Amino acid sequence: MATNKPKLRVGLIGTGFMGKTHVFGFAAAQRVFDLPFEIELHSVADRTDELAAEAARLLGFARASGDWRSLVADPEIDVIDITAPNAFHKEMALAAIAAGKHVYCEKPLAPLPADAREMAEAAAASGVRTQVGFNYLCNPMLALARDMIAGGELGEIRSYRGIHAEDYMVDAAAPFTFRHDPAGGGALADLGSHALATAEFLLGPIVRVMGDAVTVIDSRPDGKGGRRAVEVDDVSRAFLRFASGATGSIEASWIATGRKMQHDFEVYGSKGALLFSQERFNELHFYSSADPAGRQGFRRIEAGPDHAPYGLFCVAPGHQLGFNDLKAIEIARYVEAIAGMHPEPFGFSAGLRIQELVSAVAKSALQASWIDVGR
Amino acid sequence: MATNKPKLRVGLIGTGFMGKTHVFGFAAAQRVFDLPFEIELHSVADRTDELAAEAARLLGFARASGDWRSLVADPEIDVIDITAPNAFHKEMALAAIAAGKHVYCEKPLAPLPADAREMAEAAAASGVRTQVGFNYLCNPMLALARDMIAGGELGEIRSYRGIHAEDYMVDAAAPFTFRHDPAGGGALADLGSHALATAEFLLGPIVRVMGDAVTVIDSRPDGKGGRRAVEVDDVSRAFLRFASGATGSIEASWIATGRKMQHDFEVYGSKGALLFSQERFNELHFYSSADPAGRQGFRRIEAGPDHAPYGLFCVAPGHQLGFNDLKAIEIARYVEAIAGMHPEPFGFSAGLRIQELVSAVAKSALQASWIDVGR
Amino acid sequence: MATNKPKLRVGLIGTGFMGKTHVFGFAAAQRVFDLPFEIELHSVADRTDELAAEAARLLGFARASGDWRSLVADPEIDVIDITAPNAFHKEMALAAIAAGKHVYCEKPLAPLPADAREMAEAAAASGVRTQVGFNYLCNPMLALARDMIAGGELGEIRSYRGIHAEDYMVDAAAPFTFRHDPAGGGALADLGSHALATAEFLLGPIVRVMGDAVTVIDSRPDGKGGRRAVEVDDVSRAFLRFASGATGSIEASWIATGRKMQHDFEVYGSKGALLFSQERFNELHFYSSADPAGRQGFRRIEAGPDHAPYGLFCVAPGHQLGFNDLKAIEIARYVEAIAGMHPEPFGFSAGLRIQELVSAVAKSALQASWIDVGR
Amino acid sequence: MATNKPKLRVGLIGTGFMGKTHVFGFAAAQRVFDLPFEIELHSVADRTDELAAEAARLLGFARASGDWRSLVADPEIDVIDITAPNAFHKEMALAAIAAGKHVYCEKPLAPLPADAREMAEAAAASGVRTQVGFNYLCNPMLALARDMIAGGELGEIRSYRGIHAEDYMVDAAAPFTFRHDPAGGGALADLGSHALATAEFLLGPIVRVMGDAVTVIDSRPDGKGGRRAVEVDDVSRAFLRFASGATGSIEASWIATGRKMQHDFEVYGSKGALLFSQERFNELHFYSSADPAGRQGFRRIEAGPDHAPYGLFCVAPGHQLGFNDLKAIEIARYVEAIAGMHPEPFGFSAGLRIQELVSAVAKSALQASWIDVGR
Repeated sequence: MATNKPKLRVGLIGTGFMGKTHVFGFAAAQRVFDLPFEIELHSVADRTDELAAEAARLLGFARASGDWRSLVADPEIDVIDITAPNAFHKEMALAAIAAGKHVYCEKPLAPLPADAREMAEAAAASGVRTQVGFNYLCNPMLALARDMIAGGELGEIRSYRGIHAEDYMVDAAAPFTFRHDPAGGGALADLGSHALATAEFLLGPIVRVMGDAVTVIDSRPDGKGGRRAVEVDDVSRAFLRFASGATGSIEASWIATGRKMQHDFEVYGSKGALLFSQERFNELHFYSSADPAGRQGFRRIEAGPDHAPYGLFCVAPGHQLGFNDLKAIEIARYVEAIAGMHPEPFGFSAGLRIQELVSAVAKSALQASWIDVGR
Repeated sequence: MATNKPKLRVGLIGTGFMGKTHVFGFAAAQRVFDLPFEIELHSVADRTDELAAEAARLLGFARASGDWRSLVADPEIDVIDITAPNAFHKEMALAAIAAGKHVYCEKPLAPLPADAREMAEAAAASGVRTQVGFNYLCNPMLALARDMIAGGELGEIRSYRGIHAEDYMVDAAAPFTFRHDPAGGGALADLGSHALATAEFLLGPIVRVMGDAVTVIDSRPDGKGGRRAVEVDDVSRAFLRFASGATGSIEASWIATGRKMQHDFEVYGSKGALLFSQERFNELHFYSSADPAGRQGFRRIEAGPDHAPYGLFCVAPGHQLGFNDLKAIEIARYVEAIAGMHPEPFGFSAGLRIQELVSAVAKSALQASWIDVGR
Repeated sequence: MATNKPKLRVGLIGTGFMGKTHVFGFAAAQRVFDLPFEIELHSVADRTDELAAEAARLLGFARASGDWRSLVADPEIDVIDITAPNAFHKEMALAAIAAGKHVYCEKPLAPLPADAREMAEAAAASGVRTQVGFNYLCNPMLALARDMIAGGELGEIRSYRGIHAEDYMVDAAAPFTFRHDPAGGGALADLGSHALATAEFLLGPIVRVMGDAVTVIDSRPDGKGGRRAVEVDDVSRAFLRFASGATGSIEASWIATGRKMQHDFEVYGSKGALLFSQERFNELHFYSSADPAGRQGFRRIEAGPDHAPYGLFCVAPGHQLGFNDLKAIEIARYVEAIAGMHPEPFGFSAGLRIQELVSAVAKSALQASWIDVGR
Repeated sequence: MATNKPKLRVGLIGTGFMGKTHVFGFAAAQRVFDLPFEIELHSVADRTDELAAEAARLLGFARASGDWRSLVADPEIDVIDITAPNAFHKEMALAAIAAGKHVYCEKPLAPLPADAREMAEAAAASGVRTQVGFNYLCNPMLALARDMIAGGELGEIRSYRGIHAEDYMVDAAAPFTFRHDPAGGGALADLGSHALATAEFLLGPIVRVMGDAVTVIDSRPDGKGGRRAVEVDDVSRAFLRFASGATGSIEASWIATGRKMQHDFEVYGSKGALLFSQERFNELHFYSSADPAGRQGFRRIEAGPDHAPYGLFCVAPGHQLGFNDLKAIEIARYVEAIAGMHPEPFGFSAGLRIQELVSAVAKSALQASWIDVGR
């Protein structure tokens, strides 16, 4: 596509499912949005030259390398996009920042908060634009919810309940993976991070937490015929205090049989309430006490062109965005931030914040005491 | 109605909304069930002779009295039914038990656990049959849920989430009432008690709790032109540990704008899950991992004759029971227990248990520590 | 219950499920409403003296008879309540009317419109108060819907879709019954009658219909080891024209696998819409174009005290009425009409109207042409 | 993206919303599917050279032209994609077919069946691959529904109800457009065509129809300050007979206030049933009579990798496809058909069929008689 726009050349590290999703997202963002840059899929890195070359062919990158450092060193590349395993995030991101690249990193920023902090501080010091992938927040209905809350449509916010539950770890025969690693694994880190991010997105800063963490399946197949002890949580819960004075709770589970995507919340204010379920994420349910007596009820608002940027995807309401569309919005917002059109929507400092909250909940559960998380 | 059945003569104390509801319930229980007794509405007591006489006329009692003690003393009366204000429950129940009457008492058994304990012990010592009104538990769909759990249809139960939220205290201009009394008031006592009762009904004994209690509206009109400080909770939450090893949470709120009857639960087992909402209490949603791949999903089971005692109310499925029908079931089960057909479904010891759980959650919230509630 | 109210003495003919339901309904109506009469269950008739005596004992009637004519002849009886098989409705009702009794008759008034007409004309000539049991119409949410439509909350009504589908005849092994009788049987008569009644209740008179009628299971066990040909419809549909200018459709099916009580409607006006399902009959969903842009959606209104007479059953919203409560409302409205408090809510002329509509749809289906049904 | 795949060079005519959607779809299909061709956006035509050049720049085409005939004449182009106004479809398609191009044409194939027939016959004679855009049919949940029906999971199919209702014409002040053109306009043509397509997709050929068509808003602003009479339908309905013996109905409305995308169906078989709503198009609700007594109910199946090609978009269930993803599937299936991997999923003959059905329903409504539509 020939345009007069400046180019934004992307170097992708990692070519698994998330790498593919990012590539889709860049392509979709470019087609759907009038971005300030022309995206160029410049280079891709994988573990070997051969794997990288194959990925380049499949994903549409011009160049390939078996060494991610060559991408970081390439002066042509503007953005390093990290979808490699979590354990590599820190090293890659720090190198990229040091090379003056913008860095887009899949969640979690790093398994350990100390590492995440180092990354966030490096990013802040360098001035590059960073992004961590929290795509649920990119749903127009979440923006609507936040705007309604901020605009006072619910009155004073009093209580909140957030959940992120799935069932992909319900089977005790599912093997031990990096997600079970004591350093940064568990349902709270994997899914509770989303629940915490949504809570702060909607209601603002959390200042105190009381956690509860439970390991239900205490060993898993180690891939060598034996079983390996699992120390991370399968279910976690937290009580929350917000800076605004509101209180609430979140729950995370990856053993919630039957649940595929229960990223849900309920917000209760003095004059209204909102209900949301990611299971039907093109809807937001709104109750307003201002409705006349006998006519009050939760109103099912369907996503439509009134809820930007839905209208860029589809001119008519009710047609529905898909999960991959949320990724496109995430990337578009990041690209706009690189151009300075608005602040980073979810930069490394935001990613750090989530890691700190996760860590605080886990620590609180261990200590059985409230922990301050104010910032 | 002439029958050969022995009579069960009821003396009702209190003629407010709950008194009326109980009378409906006795009448409906008698018509719907083949009870072991013929119910006789024998006497009613209210604060004055005049009020009692008027209530007798309206509600269909043969006799009336301005002194509840005369009912307790009347040798013709078999059951004392207490729907007077909570503060009187203890005195009335102890007198009735001492007189050898069966006692049916609206919830809460008593605002303070110590009083509830005294009542439960007196009942146990005397051998009379007692009942506390927890009518949500009388829903055939809750019996179905319990049976499915007990029968292993969900596999090993892992986690639980219970809620009881309404919005009748959302308005800060709503006056201070007995429900705000520091001794026994609050959302946890009023609504959380139901959430706790349902949790134990389904999953068995809770052994530990960690509570969270929040006062949102800290003063209310005192009825004299001023405002009175409110110390009780508007929203409470608890983490739960069950004797079975399952963990869970409950939440209670009476300021959940838009919610009229959110007595909901979710139960997750190793092989299945159940979802329930009192907002649609003739339904139970069941997910079974045993369903074939690609055909799995939450199944909306509608109440019908397969779910006793629904069939006594209606021969066809899907026609739906109403709230008052649950009260009729509650009373029928109690009358059957008086006849020795089965144990007390929810006697004073059960009522005490709920008060203890409520008290433990409140204390835990105050102390910010886990509290044992094993029995 | 001793009152100063005049008595209304009921003579019930027929003691099957519907007879029992009526007795529940009279008892509940008396308790819930402040009726203008004191209801007395005076006499009951069944096929033999023995059956009647047993029914009297179980249902609470003072007297019993094996001959329904003795009830009609009894000067003490004010209301004859007919729950006998459809084939007897005409003879019984005409005799009761001739004897000056008020007559309450289960639906259908009579299988054949000509008979229904004779009954309606006799009732009109005599001046007695009559009622045909169309209890879905007694739901407060249907009254709400009608009021909203009449009050212009939806603007000009443009289109309507009504359904009544169940699945009790889905099994081809279910035996031939009176419901399959060519004279008056079929899904349209049994269930479509409800769909038609609701359509006119909400939108006013239908003036033209085009029908479609299908026999799916063309023979059923005859109870003697063979099969008997079925001529009546299992599924029927109709296009509708209303006097108001609105158009619509209804469908009736008794072979709708999985449907237990799909008595549903959708009404679309120029400014709003309503959705209703009897499967969740304590809810009405309302869309208003007057809601602000980006905040529009179907609003789930839950039944509550704002929707009379719900408040007589329960003081709090969201607790829900049951099917039997609708019967109590039906009876209360009839008893009030007998006292002259308001016109008959659904008298024999209304029952005739439904039979005429049913008949017109069936005839239209047979002729494959539109039929006028204006009145 | 460099591949060894043969190229498929696309020439797009028309650059409005649908043109943009097609370009998104080609790009997404290429990224998500392993297509047999490499798609090349070769040329785009618009009304003027300038418009075309601008579209080429925005949409990523290499060449542009103000004359669509130059694309048809270009030997490099393999596929002509027509998203121009309906009135031009015939001329463009016939020219493209004559030039040996594959032709992808937005619905409707042509406003008038005679024109559609000429196009289908030309396509059949030439052997090129054609496609008409019926993207609702590309939903994996519709494929699931069809497979379940075909596989006998519902038993013998007895009845069907289909709807396509939206509200974009509800405002009488909305201007007269080509959609109101007496030659091919109306709700039935625009939306009923989808309802009819889905009906045949699921249940096989329709053989007879009885129609009902209503004009509600009989004039609309003509854009010159006056109003122009509207002759086309705002609401249409039809009774259906299927070759299989099943019967059913469809309804189409573009004035269904509050409905944004009610493309719904219900299918009832002798052993099961399916419910679907495009408002939640990642779900299919399945009732099976084979479930145990007391455990039966409609099961909410969420789209996931078990339902191809969902897994190509997302590896986890419950994440949900969006409307634009359905377009990608539509295009992928067409590209595969061009490569001979399977028959045309919805070629011109299928497009003609829908136009014939639409025309038959309209004619039937006018004649008030059943019309044969067997093929």
